[in-house]
Amino acid sequence: MRIAVLNGPNLNLLGTREPALYGTTTLANIELRLYDVARELHVEVECTQHSGEGAMIDAIHDVRSRAAGIIINAAAYSHSSLAIRDALTAVAIPFVEVHLTNIFAREPERRHSMLAPAARAMICGFGALGYELALRGLAAELAPRG
Amino acid sequence: MRIAVLNGPNLNLLGTREPALYGTTTLANIELRLYDVARELHVEVECTQHSGEGAMIDAIHDVRSRAAGIIINAAAYSHSSLAIRDALTAVAIPFVEVHLTNIFAREPERRHSMLAPAARAMICGFGALGYELALRGLAAELAPRG
Amino acid sequence: MRIAVLNGPNLNLLGTREPALYGTTTLANIELRLYDVARELHVEVECTQHSGEGAMIDAIHDVRSRAAGIIINAAAYSHSSLAIRDALTAVAIPFVEVHLTNIFAREPERRHSMLAPAARAMICGFGALGYELALRGLAAELAPRG
Amino acid sequence: MRIAVLNGPNLNLLGTREPALYGTTTLANIELRLYDVARELHVEVECTQHSGEGAMIDAIHDVRSRAAGIIINAAAYSHSSLAIRDALTAVAIPFVEVHLTNIFAREPERRHSMLAPAARAMICGFGALGYELALRGLAAELAPRG
Amino acid sequence: MRIAVLNGPNLNLLGTREPALYGTTTLANIELRLYDVARELHVEVECTQHSGEGAMIDAIHDVRSRAAGIIINAAAYSHSSLAIRDALTAVAIPFVEVHLTNIFAREPERRHSMLAPAARAMICGFGALGYELALRGLAAELAPRG
Amino acid sequence: MRIAVLNGPNLNLLGTREPALYGTTTLANIELRLYDVARELHVEVECTQHSGEGAMIDAIHDVRSRAAGIIINAAAYSHSSLAIRDALTAVAIPFVEVHLTNIFAREPERRHSMLAPAARAMICGFGALGYELALRGLAAELAPRG
Amino acid sequence: MRIAVLNGPNLNLLGTREPALYGTTTLANIELRLYDVARELHVEVECTQHSGEGAMIDAIHDVRSRAAGIIINAAAYSHSSLAIRDALTAVAIPFVEVHLTNIFAREPERRHSMLAPAARAMICGFGALGYELALRGLAAELAPRG
Amino acid sequence: MRIAVLNGPNLNLLGTREPALYGTTTLANIELRLYDVARELHVEVECTQHSGEGAMIDAIHDVRSRAAGIIINAAAYSHSSLAIRDALTAVAIPFVEVHLTNIFAREPERRHSMLAPAARAMICGFGALGYELALRGLAAELAPRG
Amino acid sequence: MRIAVLNGPNLNLLGTREPALYGTTTLANIELRLYDVARELHVEVECTQHSGEGAMIDAIHDVRSRAAGIIINAAAYSHSSLAIRDALTAVAIPFVEVHLTNIFAREPERRHSMLAPAARAMICGFGALGYELALRGLAAELAPRG
Amino acid sequence: MRIAVLNGPNLNLLGTREPALYGTTTLANIELRLYDVARELHVEVECTQHSGEGAMIDAIHDVRSRAAGIIINAAAYSHSSLAIRDALTAVAIPFVEVHLTNIFAREPERRHSMLAPAARAMICGFGALGYELALRGLAAELAPRG
Amino acid sequence: MRIAVLNGPNLNLLGTREPALYGTTTLANIELRLYDVARELHVEVECTQHSGEGAMIDAIHDVRSRAAGIIINAAAYSHSSLAIRDALTAVAIPFVEVHLTNIFAREPERRHSMLAPAARAMICGFGALGYELALRGLAAELAPRG
Amino acid sequence: MRIAVLNGPNLNLLGTREPALYGTTTLANIELRLYDVARELHVEVECTQHSGEGAMIDAIHDVRSRAAGIIINAAAYSHSSLAIRDALTAVAIPFVEVHLTNIFAREPERRHSMLAPAARAMICGFGALGYELALRGLAAELAPRG
Repeated sequence: MRIAVLNGPNLNLLGTREPALYGTTTLANIELRLYDVARELHVEVECTQHSGEGAMIDAIHDVRSRAAGIIINAAAYSHSSLAIRDALTAVAIPFVEVHLTNIFAREPERRHSMLAPAARAMICGFGALGYELALRGLAAELAPRG
Repeated sequence: MRIAVLNGPNLNLLGTREPALYGTTTLANIELRLYDVARELHVEVECTQHSGEGAMIDAIHDVRSRAAGIIINAAAYSHSSLAIRDALTAVAIPFVEVHLTNIFAREPERRHSMLAPAARAMICGFGALGYELALRGLAAELAPRG
Repeated sequence: MRIAVLNGPNLNLLGTREPALYGTTTLANIELRLYDVARELHVEVECTQHSGEGAMIDAIHDVRSRAAGIIINAAAYSHSSLAIRDALTAVAIPFVEVHLTNIFAREPERRHSMLAPAARAMICGFGALGYELALRGLAAELAPRG
Repeated sequence: MRIAVLNGPNLNLLGTREPALYGTTTLANIELRLYDVARELHVEVECTQHSGEGAMIDAIHDVRSRAAGIIINAAAYSHSSLAIRDALTAVAIPFVEVHLTNIFAREPERRHSMLAPAARAMICGFGALGYELALRGLAAELAPRG
Repeated sequence: MRIAVLNGPNLNLLGTREPALYGTTTLANIELRLYDVARELHVEVECTQHSGEGAMIDAIHDVRSRAAGIIINAAAYSHSSLAIRDALTAVAIPFVEVHLTNIFAREPERRHSMLAPAARAMICGFGALGYELALRGLAAELAPRG
Repeated sequence: MRIAVLNGPNLNLLGTREPALYGTTTLANIELRLYDVARELHVEVECTQHSGEGAMIDAIHDVRSRAAGIIINAAAYSHSSLAIRDALTAVAIPFVEVHLTNIFAREPERRHSMLAPAARAMICGFGALGYELALRGLAAELAPRG
Repeated sequence: MRIAVLNGPNLNLLGTREPALYGTTTLANIELRLYDVARELHVEVECTQHSGEGAMIDAIHDVRSRAAGIIINAAAYSHSSLAIRDALTAVAIPFVEVHLTNIFAREPERRHSMLAPAARAMICGFGALGYELALRGLAAELAPRG
Repeated sequence: MRIAVLNGPNLNLLGTREPALYGTTTLANIELRLYDVARELHVEVECTQHSGEGAMIDAIHDVRSRAAGIIINAAAYSHSSLAIRDALTAVAIPFVEVHLTNIFAREPERRHSMLAPAARAMICGFGALGYELALRGLAAELAPRG
Repeated sequence: MRIAVLNGPNLNLLGTREPALYGTTTLANIELRLYDVARELHVEVECTQHSGEGAMIDAIHDVRSRAAGIIINAAAYSHSSLAIRDALTAVAIPFVEVHLTNIFAREPERRHSMLAPAARAMICGFGALGYELALRGLAAELAPRG
Repeated sequence: MRIAVLNGPNLNLLGTREPALYGTTTLANIELRLYDVARELHVEVECTQHSGEGAMIDAIHDVRSRAAGIIINAAAYSHSSLAIRDALTAVAIPFVEVHLTNIFAREPERRHSMLAPAARAMICGFGALGYELALRGLAAELAPRG
Repeated sequence: MRIAVLNGPNLNLLGTREPALYGTTTLANIELRLYDVARELHVEVECTQHSGEGAMIDAIHDVRSRAAGIIINAAAYSHSSLAIRDALTAVAIPFVEVHLTNIFAREPERRHSMLAPAARAMICGFGALGYELALRGLAAELAPRG
Repeated sequence: MRIAVLNGPNLNLLGTREPALYGTTTLANIELRLYDVARELHVEVECTQHSGEGAMIDAIHDVRSRAAGIIINAAAYSHSSLAIRDALTAVAIPFVEVHLTNIFAREPERRHSMLAPAARAMICGFGALGYELALRGLAAELAPRG
């Protein structure tokens, strides 16, 4: 079972970008940790990061044939991109939305997610740890019952 | 006389994407039908599809010197992209907006089109047939009177 | 197969009413053209025009037993009449909404249609040609597949 | 280290209440699972459930001196109770908000949380599993770094 | 067949509370009349009154196993309490909402009912008589057809 | 004592119109039942139905000299017609508003009544039974006390 | 020069309708006074009253060929009827809007006029006198300058 | 009987200010005409103009002991000044609001009057003639009946 | 003359709860000071604090027969509780609303008071001193004149 | 220690202005009472009243060098004047806002204060007594602790 | 060529007013710098400052005959004064709006300018330097081309 | 010191795009002028233009290590792109927002800037000259004081 982890704009700067807000962990650190957890859970993960809305849509289309689930942090696009939600709905793969910060404690324009209504679940506010919890949760959801 | 047909994000998945909603016709089928109708109407069409907002803008700029009209289904970007509307206004080519579904019967975020105020006309809800009707209508609009 | 074409208030003045906006074609011209197209498509059309909301409702009820589809331009009532939408839903006949002008490029009170959420499709901005496209589209939609 | 788990109105009916929506797991099942996970993580949990807004406030005050963290599912009060948020802020204990369902995919009145702006993190949509993920996440957050 | 009649905050003061608005009938008078009507209709009623939101929720849970229907006047909670609506939905007993006054002719904050969307029916403006009409209506609705 | 029962647009189709929503009882059935109940209560009723807003206003004016009360289901006009409310206020006859369905559980445009602020009382959601309850309630309200 | 005076729904009840608000002058009194003033000003007036929106539209169309100006009190339709405004714009006759009461001192739903943006002028709050002032004003406006 | 005519900011520029919108009549012309009409009606008028909100308030206080009525065109202050409305209410003199243009056909910020709810009547859109009509109307209103 | 002083949720934590915001004075200190001031003013006070909305309502009912005035700080309930306002209105005792902080300088959800429209007066922003000022003001208001 | 008492537009008419609402005490009476209380508290007060917004701003600037606190009733300007708030903030003197009436029980446009977010405290609804309470409160706030 | 520089309320306190926000440069410093730049650009400037809205309007009228352009910082009036915008439009002199701070990064009530829609250009956020840039820009705009 | 100048979608068409609105200066002309001014100011500029939102974000990241300031005209993205604002905030370089036209005099969707709250300053309405003023202003802001 393979789970795709997609990160959106500006997350490539993680670690140096407003560290008081986003922490000092880099995206590479997060991805390394996810590979470890995946091994523990006997699933595979693949991680990519994209600046453009179209690039994220293409990435979602691309994993369509090989991913059983998606973990997505669409960053600023989360709050406005109907096109990314459409891509996620079009490929019909269950996805979990992740945010590093508690988006509900931030500026008004970040308190609404365009993706959330189509998501299986959402985790926010746990920082880098949130990706790991999302992976554990999604793997459990997708695991065969029985 | 040449008419450009521009399709936006996720329309490349047509036929497999939520078929209960969007039908089983693929984008290739639609384009083939448009080439046939164009021959009947003695106009030329050229068809492209793009995932990115910037890519759609570039495509609009690109047809500027050779297209007399544009038929555009900007998909999810229709509801938010002022930049695509600016591109259409900047090239000053009459355009018709098309949607496969009746956007007014869908979720609230799809009931408003950012492009429509600058469009010559809009057709929605006729499925794949809508493109053909748009082509017939636009060709008639652009035809020399007399 | 019979299709009813219903026009609403002030459309009887077409041709003399604000010609810069609505053109110089009269309603009679439009209806004559529709009879021609109907012959070409092997369907029947019947056309009526009404000033009152109640009269439009009665007309919708009246065609209930003989029409397979309705093309309706409810003019100003389009933007507010829940009663006409209820009539269309009550008779359960598929209908297409038509507007001469691109309502999305006009005053705010005309940019919303009360009928559209229940319509099969909508066409606006093609002037008198819009009725013909609606007839072609609706006839194709209603035609037996196979 | 002790973590209080507070559940709000109607959650005592879990398992029999709208099972298509909320699942068939009872609150007792959830709490038993949390005691197991707590043992694994070497923390203590105590679980209570309350129907009244005042009762929840008293419960928050009550754990003030012995809990290092709170996991709270305030159910319907989540969407309106400034008083419970005040109680959580007053005791100044970090808390994680949990919801069984994805509140963003539900009725409009459930898409807003009054508690979230003061929360450390939020998890929703994972069903009963969400409590366990919240416990793992909160325990990690509260663990001494070193 | 048993029907529970639940009254909310401040209704215990009926008869002395703003009599120009709410009349001089006491809650005891209303309940006595309901017992009489119940006898006529061969149903049983049980009547309670509660000041707290949590107390009303507990009362709804409490009648779950013995009531086939609920008549509820949640007073001021009607306009804001999602928790009471959740309780009514959770026990899955059909209920009728009653208000003494015509809430639509009162202050803006009383013109909206949070319970109504889940109710079987609503009666308001008939004063004390409204309870009786609700009882007759609900008994008829619940009566076996045939 | 005479009570006028006025029904608005599309209610003439009752029984065939969206039966899953409005039931299979026809308007004639409802009126027959009301004549029976009226006999039992020793009042007279007269029932009419109208498609047009102006026709409803004329009907309200018409019963002015002979009706002591009005029961009105203005259907779709209920949600927008200030003119009908003005007519009811102008004739100064107490009226009860009736709706077959629970309007608060329907589309947003039906959740507001323009008539209700001037009504003596409102009943909705009891289906055809609602008219009977309204008649009983209004007759009791109008009956001489003593 | 002829000026049409059109009155809308419920104005036929003037004199008996809420006299504390609308005064005891009947519509016939107002019209008689207008005939007198018209004679003084050497213009002709014709006065009609209509309950239905469609009837008002037909009346506006009807005076098209013989009226140089229109004085209109559309009563409750003033606040919502785009169709009547369209009729007035379609016949392209200058019109003055009149209201007996100061609509800005009344309920919120009466404080906005749908007709006013297309009107030459508006007079409200002068009671029956308002019609006379409107006639004087409109006659002066329409009089040949020089 | 004396009537005060108060004009607000920028009206001193009348005749040169945006003549396409406000005409070429100067404020002096208007005032001369009002003195003539006043003589005809056997009333006295006194006219002043002020740029400041405080100056207008002082002027209203000033005429308190000698004016039976006020005609006021508060220009831009009309749309926002609660203080001027308070002054008019405080002196308890009936007043008529006048605007040269039809404020309802202008920018949104001019379509609302803060003074109107306290006014006896309003006239707008008649240009300079509006003052004269207001004077005639107000004189008639204030004239002893009988 | 007796005045009841009612405090709402979380005020029992005063002195330890967010001292930077609410100060270090405890509720007991405030109440002791009020007893002193009451002696000086020759009135009696009784002070209670409650976490639940229902408990506050019961407390208001309870003092009905012995209190001539109420001083209430309903804390977070102030901003939403129609039920507490109903209780205050039902017992018909004049009351003064008090807040420790200047609620208008805080978060948007605290800038509106549901109780204020029914209050005799409001004092906010004076910290603990506000209770004393409210007591002096209310005692003066209630004192026999003359 | 000197405290400036600033009153805004129309307060000079106090005693004669709408006495049912504002009482029969004149501004002079209020100021005399404040001088007495000031003597008792060993502070100085100076009182002024202004009709214009600019005049109030100048007055605030003027007391800058000699006042330790300001009591301000800006009357109608309270609800809209950002400029007066800026003046108060610019001079950086603590101020208390006073209103004679309970502004929250009045028209919607009076229920919001533009000054309040910058105020130290607010008192409303105590009539003339409110100034005295404000003086006592502000003097206590400004008094040296020790 | 002469350019008028108008400053509004509280700007006379510049340098001492909230220096952390507005800087320590005084208005006199700014004006001296503008005289220097004007000399360099071979234009004349005249600078005034006013506390009152009416005073600003009078100042705009006053420079009408001698200024070719206006640079205006209306301070708090910028956000609400239609009267000042009317004055600027009435004199028909091109103007540039200046703000010391970036108004879009401040409180919501400062993020909207009533003057901007009529301005030639706007500069904000450059502190005192903004006046100089505005002067350079406006002088270039007004300079004869060619 | 290097300053990056970033232009957004459709600005490559400058000179041919709606010249009545945007002028006939091309982007190349603007950039040449900026190189000249930069030389005068002893700073360096580098200019790029991008159609895509992702491309703009990448460009902002790209200049991170070498630019001391950014001048950005994000065109249509200015009004909606949180992602571009995040990129600007993430690289923590001071930036000035420029618009050719006065955005506050245009359609409503252009009157709000998503970037402005994070900008150092904004200039709009000066056409091509605005870039030069922004460069002068930003260079002065960034210059070492002393």
